[in-house]
Amino acid sequence: MRIAVFAGDGIGPEVTEQAVRVLEKLGLPGLELVEGDVGGMAYRKHGHPLPQATLDIARGADAILFGAVGDFSCDNLERHLRPEQAILGLRKELGLFANLRPARVFPGLEHLTTLRREVAETIDLLIVRELNGDVYFGEKGIRTLPDGRRQGWDMMSYAEDEVRRIARAGFDAAMTRGRRLCSVDKANVLETSQLWRDVVIEVSAEYPEVELSHMYVDNAAMQLVKNPGQFDVIVTGNLFGDILSDQASMCVGSIGLLASASLAEGSFGLYEPIHGSAPDIAGKGLANPMATILSAAMLLRHSLGMEAEAARIEAAVARALADGINGGDLGGSAGTREIGDAVVERL
Amino acid sequence: MRIAVFAGDGIGPEVTEQAVRVLEKLGLPGLELVEGDVGGMAYRKHGHPLPQATLDIARGADAILFGAVGDFSCDNLERHLRPEQAILGLRKELGLFANLRPARVFPGLEHLTTLRREVAETIDLLIVRELNGDVYFGEKGIRTLPDGRRQGWDMMSYAEDEVRRIARAGFDAAMTRGRRLCSVDKANVLETSQLWRDVVIEVSAEYPEVELSHMYVDNAAMQLVKNPGQFDVIVTGNLFGDILSDQASMCVGSIGLLASASLAEGSFGLYEPIHGSAPDIAGKGLANPMATILSAAMLLRHSLGMEAEAARIEAAVARALADGINGGDLGGSAGTREIGDAVVERL
Ligand SMILES: CC(C)[C@H](C(=O)O)[C@@H](O)C(=O)O
Ligand SMILES: CC(C)[C@H](C(=O)O)[C@@H](O)C(=O)O
Repeated sequence: MRIAVFAGDGIGPEVTEQAVRVLEKLGLPGLELVEGDVGGMAYRKHGHPLPQATLDIARGADAILFGAVGDFSCDNLERHLRPEQAILGLRKELGLFANLRPARVFPGLEHLTTLRREVAETIDLLIVRELNGDVYFGEKGIRTLPDGRRQGWDMMSYAEDEVRRIARAGFDAAMTRGRRLCSVDKANVLETSQLWRDVVIEVSAEYPEVELSHMYVDNAAMQLVKNPGQFDVIVTGNLFGDILSDQASMCVGSIGLLASASLAEGSFGLYEPIHGSAPDIAGKGLANPMATILSAAMLLRHSLGMEAEAARIEAAVARALADGINGGDLGGSAGTREIGDAVVERL
Repeated sequence: MRIAVFAGDGIGPEVTEQAVRVLEKLGLPGLELVEGDVGGMAYRKHGHPLPQATLDIARGADAILFGAVGDFSCDNLERHLRPEQAILGLRKELGLFANLRPARVFPGLEHLTTLRREVAETIDLLIVRELNGDVYFGEKGIRTLPDGRRQGWDMMSYAEDEVRRIARAGFDAAMTRGRRLCSVDKANVLETSQLWRDVVIEVSAEYPEVELSHMYVDNAAMQLVKNPGQFDVIVTGNLFGDILSDQASMCVGSIGLLASASLAEGSFGLYEPIHGSAPDIAGKGLANPMATILSAAMLLRHSLGMEAEAARIEAAVARALADGINGGDLGGSAGTREIGDAVVERL
């Protein structure tokens, strides 16, 4: 079993370090960790945010534990050299097409969200976001029109097989949860969405037990404010999923606790905290590593089939929280290492 | 002075009727109201959601008061015949490029939002959304790829002049408010956004007094949850504006009170409540007409230059609210006509 560890920029190395300690503490026989460079730090060392060597490490591994990428000093680089190309490149090159982002308020942390307690308590949803298509990976450019004006353009598209596999991921997830799937699109304006909706309806025939609904993205953004408790699983495209999953995460209030999985067909996946590289607090030992530790738990469960070990990590994090070990982002005072210690002790 | 009144579908006719009563009560000399058919009802009468006769009425008017369009019975029509094409068509044909959507919690109605009171109270923002470009109006279609797969596609684009005029609308609005403008894009992924950002920065040189910032759309969706009070004016493209303005509206809680303006160059504009056609309560006399009445006030102010009359309407609505006249959507029991009466009495 080989796990690639890509710590990246900003607080990435600090939080990843603690997740690695947790993994090592489990003492899993045959577990090998291999580090690789991604993001702004990779650009500075190798001239590219996703060097070939890093891709090779990823391809040779069973799963990737990812920290964060993002670095203001790279803001003026050409697009293909910017840190975020590392994560976009890994998604595309490794066929990581299904992003799973659960959002649920942690008991005892209801006070952290800006939503009223009685609303926040009802949140227990999963967003299944497509990651390999949409306007993210279409042709794009800035051109000069015949009349001399500059124009920026990006092609949005989905082909039926791309929709079918993410729809199945959505239905499969719904089968393990409340059996309700809400597909979010903008079919009243976009042909991409019209095809999306048609294919989701076709796939629904394979899942007679799942209740399927459709919602326009603008309405979904409203409903996540008005009544987020109504949702079980949401399946949506890359762009809408980017927006809605971040909105939903913030509804939970404790973004320092939220993990995510980006899965390929089969068991391979990349696991990362949903928070970013937070350059403002990087290197200060202030970042909360819990989301990365919980990402490592997801990794064990989904990619390595180690349910018991995953549950052990999650229980240790829950106990640390119950014991009042909170990072600064959760209104507490525990630092990065202290939180790592607390989780390791409770394993 | 001629106002085109397009009541449309669902609750559109009921709420528009009350707004018309309010306008008539003002007794404005020389004011002429001309009705036209739009949406599903226009399709049923004339075979098209935006008949030529309606467009002609619009072109002959100084402004449009719009109710709502949307009708489930039209869901299976071809796209160009669906009700929402009426509003898209009016925006494009009449050059209504700037959608102004203010969001502010009404004093006394803080309990209606799902946000904590202390967060909701801070909301006082304006979203300036571009309406004539982006992926809404690009080429689009569903095609069969050479290998036989169906693919849906939509072209996203902005040309520099399109960005420039909406950027100016955003800066101009900021000059009348808190002088802070946040431009929302996805420049880390989209070339359309990269050009958007470049042009907004160019235009900012004309407005040295306005503090300009940039935010990615996923972060904006988060920040609207975390700290909506941080925003003064947000300027963004058609698609992101659709999503964020609906999210922001719901943060206010009282969607039955929110009006919007869609402005062309010069004084022409279309004014509509932001709520939809609400077919479930249509024809029952339950709909809250306040948002449409407030839209009529915006119309008088922006398109007819009648500030005093606009303020009179707004004051009458505020007094009715203060006197406890609330629609069902605001937790009250007043019906459509009763609310209309209450506002007319207080004029
Ligand atoms: C960094 C960026 C390209 C990325 C995205 O838009 O997908 C991020 O926002 C995410 O959601 O992982
Ligand atoms: C009905 C629909 C086409 C429209 C839009 O997406 O612009 C609506 O959501 C709006 O915001 O006015």
